[in-house]
Amino acid sequence: MSLSAEILLRLEMQDLQDRYMAAIDNDKLEDWPSFFVEDCLYEIIPKENADAGLPIPLVYCDNAAMLRDRVISLRHANIYAQPYYRHFLSGLSCRMVGDDRVEMSASYLVINTTPAGESQVYQAGRYEDVVVKTDKGWRFKSKRAIYDTSRVQTLLAYPI
Amino acid sequence: MSLSAEILLRLEMQDLQDRYMAAIDNDKLEDWPSFFVEDCLYEIIPKENADAGLPIPLVYCDNAAMLRDRVISLRHANIYAQPYYRHFLSGLSCRMVGDDRVEMSASYLVINTTPAGESQVYQAGRYEDVVVKTDKGWRFKSKRAIYDTSRVQTLLAYPI
Amino acid sequence: MSLSAEILLRLEMQDLQDRYMAAIDNDKLEDWPSFFVEDCLYEIIPKENADAGLPIPLVYCDNAAMLRDRVISLRHANIYAQPYYRHFLSGLSCRMVGDDRVEMSASYLVINTTPAGESQVYQAGRYEDVVVKTDKGWRFKSKRAIYDTSRVQTLLAYPI
Repeated sequence: MSLSAEILLRLEMQDLQDRYMAAIDNDKLEDWPSFFVEDCLYEIIPKENADAGLPIPLVYCDNAAMLRDRVISLRHANIYAQPYYRHFLSGLSCRMVGDDRVEMSASYLVINTTPAGESQVYQAGRYEDVVVKTDKGWRFKSKRAIYDTSRVQTLLAYPI
Repeated sequence: MSLSAEILLRLEMQDLQDRYMAAIDNDKLEDWPSFFVEDCLYEIIPKENADAGLPIPLVYCDNAAMLRDRVISLRHANIYAQPYYRHFLSGLSCRMVGDDRVEMSASYLVINTTPAGESQVYQAGRYEDVVVKTDKGWRFKSKRAIYDTSRVQTLLAYPI
Repeated sequence: MSLSAEILLRLEMQDLQDRYMAAIDNDKLEDWPSFFVEDCLYEIIPKENADAGLPIPLVYCDNAAMLRDRVISLRHANIYAQPYYRHFLSGLSCRMVGDDRVEMSASYLVINTTPAGESQVYQAGRYEDVVVKTDKGWRFKSKRAIYDTSRVQTLLAYPI
C-alpha cells in the first residue's frame, strides 16, 4: 500500500511529540532542551490571553540556553517537590509550510501525581508548535502550551 | 518497508477521528456536521441502555440538517456557558466491510474545563462508528457515543 | 513515500497496545491472556519499588496459566463490583533487540467509572514491556505496569 506524504508527516510529528513527552514524564529533563533549536521560543500561556491577543505568558524562554538554565535550577533549587507528570496528546494536525517547516497543533492533557500519591488532572490545553528540519532531525522552532485550566494548582515550574 | 492495508486503514481512521476531535475542541463547531454524510445517525447513549438493547439515547440526530440546527442553536441560544472540551482517544479498532464501509470502535475521554477554570474528567466511554468513502473522503455514516459515566455533570449540549 | 523500519515497528506496537487496551476496556477479559506468550511475566508494581530496585509487585504472574486463572476467578468470585476501565497511552517508545524481540515503554492512564457512575482518574504510570514475534504475531513476553499513583483507590483486581 502507498502512504501519502501527509500521513507520513503526521507519523513523524507524532513520533517527535511522543519522544518529547516521554523525556519529561520519565525524568529525563536534561534531554528536554535538545528537542529545540538554539534560536527557539518556548512559552506557557493562559487561553484567555492567547485568545485576546494579549500574549503575556506565564513562562517565556526565547533561546535554548534559557531552557538549559531552567533544567539546572529545577535540579538544584529543590524547593519544589518533584511532580510526576504524564502527558497525553490527541487531535494532532500539521501541515508543511515551505520545504522544511511544519506548523502543528494538538490537544494535551497532563496528569500529575502529588507527593501524597494521588493522580489528578493537572492541566488541559493545546500546543501550537512550529517544527523545523535540521541535520539532527525535526526540532521545535517554537512551542506554545496554551492552557484551558486557569486554576493552576501548583507552581508551574516543570515543562509542559 | 511495506505497509499492510490494515495499518493504512487504521492511519486514515485515526486521522479522521483526530480532525473530528480537533474541530470540537478548538471551537470550530460549524465544521462538525461536515464530518457526516447527509443521511447519517448521531447519538449519545448511556452504556446501560446500549448494553440492555434499549437504545434510548440522550441525544439523537438522524440527518446532517439536525446537526447543523444543533450548532446554530448552541451558537445563538447562549443559555449554556460554553464548555472547553478536550477529547482523547485510544484502543482504536476498525475493519472494512465491503469496498467502501468501515466499522470502527475506540475508547474516548472528554476533559472539561469549567467556567471557574478547573479541568476535570467529564465523560468516558466508547465510540461505535460506521464510516463510508465519499468523493470528499471518509465521512461518518453513524457515530454513537456510548458513555460509561452516568453522573453527567452538566447538560449534554455540546457534541461528544 | 517510504516508511522507515522504525516507524513501521511503532505502528505495529501501537496496534498491539490498542488491541490489548480495547480487550480490557470492552469486557473481553477472556482474550487478555492471549496477548502473552505462555512463558511470560505480568506484574503491577509501585514506582517507588521499581525505582529503588526493590521489585515487590502488587500483582505477579509468571506464566499465562496464572493469567487465565485470574480471569476465571474475576468472573466467578464476583466479590468486586466490576470496574469500567478506559486505558489511554502516550509517549510510546520501542526498539528492536535482535531479530524478534522488542523493548517498549509508554505512559498510561486508566480512567475508572465507579458503580455510582462517576468517572475519575484511577491510575497513571508507565508500561515497561518486552514483545516477541511468534507465529501468531506479536505477543508480550513481559509486561510491567509501574504506577505513579500510590493511593490506589480500590482493590487492584482487574488487569492494567
